[in-house]
Amino acid sequence: MPRRVAKPRSRPKDLKEACVVAAHAVIAEKGVDGLSLRDVARRLGVSHQAPYRHYESRDHLLAEVIRRGLERFAEHLEARPRHPDPEKDMGALGEAYLRYARDNPLEYRLLFGMRWPDVARNPELLANAIKAFDILRQTLGRLPQANHRSSDQLNLDALFVWSVMHGQSTLLQTNAFENLNLPGTVVSKAAAHILGRIGDALGGHS
Amino acid sequence: MPRRVAKPRSRPKDLKEACVVAAHAVIAEKGVDGLSLRDVARRLGVSHQAPYRHYESRDHLLAEVIRRGLERFAEHLEARPRHPDPEKDMGALGEAYLRYARDNPLEYRLLFGMRWPDVARNPELLANAIKAFDILRQTLGRLPQANHRSSDQLNLDALFVWSVMHGQSTLLQTNAFENLNLPGTVVSKAAAHILGRIGDALGGHS
Repeated sequence: MPRRVAKPRSRPKDLKEACVVAAHAVIAEKGVDGLSLRDVARRLGVSHQAPYRHYESRDHLLAEVIRRGLERFAEHLEARPRHPDPEKDMGALGEAYLRYARDNPLEYRLLFGMRWPDVARNPELLANAIKAFDILRQTLGRLPQANHRSSDQLNLDALFVWSVMHGQSTLLQTNAFENLNLPGTVVSKAAAHILGRIGDALGGHS
Repeated sequence: MPRRVAKPRSRPKDLKEACVVAAHAVIAEKGVDGLSLRDVARRLGVSHQAPYRHYESRDHLLAEVIRRGLERFAEHLEARPRHPDPEKDMGALGEAYLRYARDNPLEYRLLFGMRWPDVARNPELLANAIKAFDILRQTLGRLPQANHRSSDQLNLDALFVWSVMHGQSTLLQTNAFENLNLPGTVVSKAAAHILGRIGDALGGHS
């Protein structure tokens, strides 16, 4: 029998939890395609079969990693500084979104930068995604000038706002705005300008 | 000496060109982190030193791959159906952008989904990036209602539009809109709605 590569100090008491932590480490090192239950087991110093007690497959573990990420993401958005003025609250939500993406680049990519494992087989993942999306829908729904005629309209505007926030977050992460020889003042004003344009769009002809 | 893994039928006549094609194949197979000049040489059946005649380093080859991708991207945008009406032309530009991202997912990720190799050492890459961005700036600059007061304002709006297009393109690629249990009518209307909201934003309080 081959020796264990790294012997942990002690067996994890909560294996279900430990698998999630180990999965994060594997993904950080090898990327999401490198994640396997075998690798997670090796890292935890448990038998190859042990993780299967809690996760049916590698995709179920990945779904749990994403689900928890969405939970933290939603908590982060809810913890934004609150403003009674709905427009200011919308701005604070946008800033909180950008901050999360900037401070958690790996997790952000897991949540929104790749296809998820089959959501039909992971209903809790779907539930957490909808919960995070609801924060945006509720904030949008409180805007007086949005004047949403229907729930479809509100959903469509939420997808618009999400597209802007996601595009900006990912372009900022890749330094794309800095690869265009733009004046420094433009790059430094971009985030505030883009948030302002969201407000213009929603205040416009709805 | 180890045998060559795959012996090509004939040596490439234009090695500089062949390296770019081989780099695409390596990236498609192993991802961008897996790209090396050694691998490109092996694939072409030339000596490990041969690619260095044309590319100083692996990053210079990658920069050339991206530069050509930007060139094709700009050509694709320029080939959009033209409308004399600037607003319709802006809409056609948005649709052309989405089509490019949808039809060339791997190339799109190379162009806008990762940090580029050092642009200071690859001035031609920068030049091609600016050329593609100019198409957006020019189209925006023709909008009467945009009423741009300064070139800074135009640049900021171009970054806003780019953020929306990039966010939407990448969220569509990961099926993210479909992971929220939204009515099918909302998902199918999203692209048109988001393009419309760009128009509302630019027609708004500038």
